[in-house]
Order: sequence, then C-alpha cells, then structure tokens
Amino acid sequence: MIDFELMKRLSRQTPSKIVLLVMDGVGGLPHPQSGRTELEAAKKPNLDRVAEESVCGLVDPVSPGITPGSAPGHLGLFGYDPVKYNVRRGIVEALGIGLEVKRNDVAARGNFSTVDERGFVTDRRAGRIPTEENARLCQILSQITLSGVEILVTPVREHRFSLIFRGDGLSPDLIASDPQQIGVAPRKVEAMTPGAKKTARLINSFIQQAERLLKNSSPANMVLLRGFSRLPEIPSMPEIYKLTPAVIALYPMYRGLGRLVGMEVLPAGNNITEQLESLRRHYQDYDFFFIHFKTTDARGEDRDYEAKVRAIEEVDRALPQLLALEPDVLIVTGDHSTPATLGLHTWHPVPFMLRSKWCRRDKVSAFSEEACLAGGLGRFPAMEIMPLAMANALKLEKFGA
Amino acid sequence: MIDFELMKRLSRQTPSKIVLLVMDGVGGLPHPQSGRTELEAAKKPNLDRVAEESVCGLVDPVSPGITPGSAPGHLGLFGYDPVKYNVRRGIVEALGIGLEVKRNDVAARGNFSTVDERGFVTDRRAGRIPTEENARLCQILSQITLSGVEILVTPVREHRFSLIFRGDGLSPDLIASDPQQIGVAPRKVEAMTPGAKKTARLINSFIQQAERLLKNSSPANMVLLRGFSRLPEIPSMPEIYKLTPAVIALYPMYRGLGRLVGMEVLPAGNNITEQLESLRRHYQDYDFFFIHFKTTDARGEDRDYEAKVRAIEEVDRALPQLLALEPDVLIVTGDHSTPATLGLHTWHPVPFMLRSKWCRRDKVSAFSEEACLAGGLGRFPAMEIMPLAMANALKLEKFGA
Repeated sequence: MIDFELMKRLSRQTPSKIVLLVMDGVGGLPHPQSGRTELEAAKKPNLDRVAEESVCGLVDPVSPGITPGSAPGHLGLFGYDPVKYNVRRGIVEALGIGLEVKRNDVAARGNFSTVDERGFVTDRRAGRIPTEENARLCQILSQITLSGVEILVTPVREHRFSLIFRGDGLSPDLIASDPQQIGVAPRKVEAMTPGAKKTARLINSFIQQAERLLKNSSPANMVLLRGFSRLPEIPSMPEIYKLTPAVIALYPMYRGLGRLVGMEVLPAGNNITEQLESLRRHYQDYDFFFIHFKTTDARGEDRDYEAKVRAIEEVDRALPQLLALEPDVLIVTGDHSTPATLGLHTWHPVPFMLRSKWCRRDKVSAFSEEACLAGGLGRFPAMEIMPLAMANALKLEKFGA
Repeated sequence: MIDFELMKRLSRQTPSKIVLLVMDGVGGLPHPQSGRTELEAAKKPNLDRVAEESVCGLVDPVSPGITPGSAPGHLGLFGYDPVKYNVRRGIVEALGIGLEVKRNDVAARGNFSTVDERGFVTDRRAGRIPTEENARLCQILSQITLSGVEILVTPVREHRFSLIFRGDGLSPDLIASDPQQIGVAPRKVEAMTPGAKKTARLINSFIQQAERLLKNSSPANMVLLRGFSRLPEIPSMPEIYKLTPAVIALYPMYRGLGRLVGMEVLPAGNNITEQLESLRRHYQDYDFFFIHFKTTDARGEDRDYEAKVRAIEEVDRALPQLLALEPDVLIVTGDHSTPATLGLHTWHPVPFMLRSKWCRRDKVSAFSEEACLAGGLGRFPAMEIMPLAMANALKLEKFGA
C-alpha cells in the first residue's frame, strides 16, 4: 500500500514530464523450440538502448501468484492497491465499450437469454446471438422509461450488453437476477441493504418491461443481470500527486481506466505512431502521459508467438518519436504477462525499465524478463512504480527534517 | 500477509498435483576450510537438475533476521503469517509427541522439578531425570481426576511432560505456575481474564494433587506449568485453496502441524524412500503433498557438517522416485537454515526451487544458497510460496475483469 497522505504531502508540481508506456501483456515465457521469450526473440535496438540507460526490474502486478485482469493490472501501475480499489464487472464492461460512467451510476452486465413458456431459463446466452441482433434489441430496450432515472442500454458483443441506471439515490447492493444455471426462473433482484430497496424496485420493473418487449424475439426473449456495481471511491492522481495526467489509448477500456483516476483523454489515432504523434502535440499541456499499446497482449492471447514478437518490434520502431521528446522520466513495462505459449494473462512478473537523468543505472542492456531480473530494482510490486516515477522526476520533497 | 478471502475467491479444484518437499534446516553457511556450504559440498545431480528446470529464489521463513522454530517455519511454508498464526508452546509440545489436540483443549508444558521443605524451587528441571522415570511419574499423575475435565499427562523427554485439559468452557488465558527462577515458591496459576477463572481453579487443584502424589519422588517432587495455550483459530488449506492436502512425515511434530492446517496424515515408513513410496501409493487421492525430511536439520543441530552433507545426498538419491510421478508443481525448500557451523536454527534465507511446466525458468543450475540468490524469484517471504504453487498448478482464476 502506498501512503497517499504522505504522497499528497511530499508531491509538488514541476515542469518535468513523466511518460508511462504500457505494453499490455508484454511479459512472456520461452518458446519450446528456441528457449527464447517473445522479448528475447524480438529485434528491438531502441528498447534495448533505453534498458541500457535505465534502472530495471521485474514487477509483480498485484502480488506473487496473482493473475490480474486489465483493471487491476493498470490500477497497480497507477499506484493503487488493486485489491483495495477493485473495479467490479459492471463498471469494467461499461468502461470497455467507452461509456462515460458517472460517480453515482449503477452499472450491470446484461445477458440476452432464452426462457421457456414457464419462464425457466433454457439458455443463459440466447445461443450467442449475433452482435447486430444484440444492437437491435438494445434499441428496443432503450424505449423503457422509469421515473427518476435515466437508463442506458448498450450492446457489447454477441449476447452481452451493458446496463447503466443514472439518477439520485441509487445503490449497487443488489443480488443478481442471473441464476447462473438453467432450468430455473431468473431471480427477482433483491436489495442487500435497506438503501438499495428503491434501486431493486426500479431494476425489477425494468426487467418486467424488458420481458414484455422481448416476448417475440426468441431466442433472445429475456434478460439476465449481474455484477451490479458503481465506480470505486478512488482518490485521483491529480489529488495524490498534483499531476495533470493524460491517457493516449486506442481501446475504450484503457481510456476509461485512465479517466477513473483523473486522466484526461487525448486523441489516439489508429496505431502507436499516431499515439506518439498525439503525445508530441499535447506534450506541453500535461506532465504525466499514459500510453497504452494493446497488440502485445492481443497476439499473446491468440497464442501467436511470432505476431507478438512483431508487435514488440512495432513499438521499437516507433520509439524514436518518443525519445525525441526527451521525457524527464520514461517508464516502459506491462500490466501483466501474456505468454503466447499459454494464451492467457498470467502471474509472471513483468519486465520494467525507468530512464531518467537521476536513475541509478544498472548493468542491464536488454529489455527482457531475464535481463531485467538482474536490474537495480530487483523484483517489486507495481504499486511502487508511481513513487519511483515521481522521485525520478524530482517531484517529491524530502520526507522529514 | 496473503489475502485469504482473495484466495478463496480465486482458487479452484483441478486434477493438477503439487508436491512440497521440505528439507528441514537445509540452508547452511560455508565450511571454514572449504568455503562451501553443506549444499555446495553435497553431490546432488538430481536436485541440481531440478534447479535447472525451475524458477529459484531465496525464502525468508518469517521476515529478515527472524529465526523460526519448527512451527512458524512450517506455517510460513503453508501460506500463513507465522506471527499472526502463532502456535504456542503447550500446543507445539503436544503436537511434537503425536497427541491429537482438539479444538477446545488447553495444553501446557510441564516440568518435573525439585522443591525444598519450605516449598521453594531448588531445581526447575529436577536434575533432568531419565525419561523412564518421567514416564513412571506421568502414570502416577494420570490418577488425578477432576470433575468435568479429562486430563492427559504424557511424558516428553527427561523432565518435560505435556499436560492437556479437555472439556467445555476452558480457557488458556492463564499465568504460568513456573516462576522461571529458583529460591521462590511456584506461583499460583492465575486467570488473566474472568472467563479463565474456572480453568485456573482446576489447574491449581491439579497442581495440589500432583504435589501430594509426588511427595516421595524427590528430586521430582513438584510440577511447574507454563505455556498454556489452545489450537490457533486457523483457516484450513482446504478452505482457503480448495485443496485436499496430505502430509508424509516421520516425526509427529510435522504430522501435527500438517493436521493443524487440514492435511490428512499418510503413512511415512522409516525413511525418505519409504515416504516417497507412500506418496506413490496415495498419489491419486490428494492434490497437495507435504513431505518432510528431518535429517538435514538434525545433523545441522549436531554440528556435524559431513553428516548433513550426506543427508542432502540421501534426498538426492531418492529424488528420482518422486520425479517419476511427474508432479505438475514440485517445490523443494526448507523451513529455515540450520548451518552445521552454528548448530542452531538461524535466520538465513533458505534456497527455494519451483518446477512446473509454466514456471519461468532462470539460469540457476544448482540448488544452493548462492546459486538460488540469482533466481527468478529473488528473495521473498515464505508466505508467498502457496500463491505461487497454486498459480503454477493453474489452480487460480484471474483476478478482476
């Protein structure tokens, strides 16, 4: 746990710039034939040169053995304890499709599903209807009105949609309507606390109306809701660090996570080159930049080792654009590992490098798992990155007399 | 501290197998002549091969500088904070001689001791009477009856015995009768809380009767009691990790510690070969095995460097039996160091290796203190072993969306 009160006391505004480049899922495992990880196989002279000029280490995103999802993985990088500041399902779903969730909104994950004539669930996913059909049904559900709340129904993919209730006095302390099994009726949404009774009533009324509107849309003739949640109460990065932070990300999820901690969203274009061009254009207006690169994770999840190697090389080719800005602090790391051999997010610690005029350089001369292990920072939790970044930017006062 | 609630949420049952081989006290210090530690001197091709295929590290059993006894040393390996879950003396004594301690039992360590005609203690250990005399006296004390409690008096060694009070409404919140000095009378056992008054009365009555029965057994004509304790409230490994764990240990203490955290006790035979044969026989029935090897610690405590080296080689020779089972996760480490040069448990971190299909191998090619220091896990607290074992066995779900 980072002591935010201490950070608030010690942090100060200065003109120095911090750039955090997150290569999503960059950590890997050795290829069974070559014995080399994706990072070891990639030709990446620029990243390796930065490693040479950096202090390096291996980062545990949450804690040893824990495999993080995208939200906890990034909250750790931003300095938050990912277990304490847990962003729950309904919110993550909404952020992931680019919805701007407001402080008091209650969000849920929705499934279109199938019920039989008795009202019993026969398919929780309505045969995974096409996303276009989903969009059509969400439009139908958008007709539902309830007094005192605004309702947003937004398609996600296949049978999944996002539901947001916006209004005063709503509570997420609700038991899901999704029974998580077939052969039974959907549950009535129940309040877990007295303060949630009104919300439960509203949601149940939404479900009733939805059932009526979907009567003839079989197989998608019912909705199931779960993961009721609200934005976590999270102190913002401007509050804690006196920073003016910005996010440059192609995917809505990461823009949403940035916004959650007080970042402004900047245009990202369509690829890393355009992201770095946006960085250059806005360089004078902010002092902290979070740049998110997704392809390393996506190709890792595809189990496509070669493509993940190429994604790393893509970042490497674009890097001189970033280096030309000469940021006072440059950090390159990932939010977790996604080894192409496994095709999953994993718990393995992630290579990390921090370059600044004042970092204490080590002997590491390559950006890879094994090389960074010998780095000056050793193995350390992601939460400690932000204090290190602030210190290297000379943005932290001395503690104590 | 491992977040057990998080572990409960993330853990899942799978067919994969975890084997934890504990070489008690395996860590050492360099021999003054050769400059090699016991592990460095031992011929252990099998252990070194496992190191080559593992991710390695150095484990702090409790925290830097803290020398653990057997109980905290093992609780750390099992994933518990050894300071929070402190198994106290009376319980350790009882477990060490193989007594099955029940949830509400109050246990104490007893000394046979000598008092003079005024009742003042002249020897707290009654001249360290032979264990056979101890056994005879324990039989005499077993005649004592008190209404509402069962009393178990069991010899340990020389002047030491174990006392267990079994019954309802007992409390261990008692001040010892042992004054820890000579020339004064034993103290009356006093309750530290109102709820312990009844127990204090019962124990004092036991002491009175014991004094009467031992009147003519000088030098062992009195008993001193201390370390009143109860089993700690400890969530079990099945509860936390959904595991079905088993222990294969020659010594009762380690079977007791295993039972304490929910392990089933399997036959162990008389040596490591027979322990591993038992492992093979029961391999299908459990998914976590704790195998305890004592000789490394015992020879270390004897200050017998050569014999400790031979004990390491004994494990190495037996290891192929274990490797033949191809456990999904194999961990080899110790519960603490016992350097033969010192002849004591010490605080030095302990070599550690974890082999699995998904471990991120490092360059370590020998199982020793210095080699493991360069391992991929760096230096880390024993408590983190269990989450790592679970992750490598693919028994942990992703945390967060």
